[in-house]
Amino acid sequence: MKKISLNDSNQYDDKTFKRFLLHDSAYFRVLNFNLKAGQLFPVHSHSAEGQLTIQVVAGQGEFLGADDSSMPADTGDVLVSDISEPHGVRATTDMRILVTIAPPI
Amino acid sequence: MKKISLNDSNQYDDKTFKRFLLHDSAYFRVLNFNLKAGQLFPVHSHSAEGQLTIQVVAGQGEFLGADDSSMPADTGDVLVSDISEPHGVRATTDMRILVTIAPPI
Repeated sequence: MKKISLNDSNQYDDKTFKRFLLHDSAYFRVLNFNLKAGQLFPVHSHSAEGQLTIQVVAGQGEFLGADDSSMPADTGDVLVSDISEPHGVRATTDMRILVTIAPPI
Repeated sequence: MKKISLNDSNQYDDKTFKRFLLHDSAYFRVLNFNLKAGQLFPVHSHSAEGQLTIQVVAGQGEFLGADDSSMPADTGDVLVSDISEPHGVRATTDMRILVTIAPPI
């Protein structure tokens, strides 16, 4: 049992998004990404079994998908995606997301 | 790919905590529990492989563990626990937690 605080990784970078690995185990991986307004977490996918969640913990932007699709991504929104589906995020304001991947790839 | 909003489950019950199943798949299960101030999510465990996170998305309280142990649980805190370890939550204020269990039991 361990406790992580999202306050400890509340840091941004003017050049590109900041990435923090918060937890990694055989069962899942938890990451925090912080994007300054306008920064992009590019659309990508992996040919692996499993799913992930992308939870907006602060700020707002868009969830990105295949074929230039997008959905509003506001604080409190949680995207569920297969690991093999294209997924990404674009920040409108400074934005913090929590990503959980199971099983980890 | 689907989007869930935590705003849609922002409901409490005076008698006991409210439970919302947000996602269930072969890979993980995501639940939202909302506890009124003073309500308890009792300490429990399951003899199963896997881990879970308990993320405080609003309010504050305590994470509970084995042998009456406790840790402060503030908004932004994430507890990582084996499914087989005793874990629970007590709310000091009205409190919302997001629980992710992988693999689901």
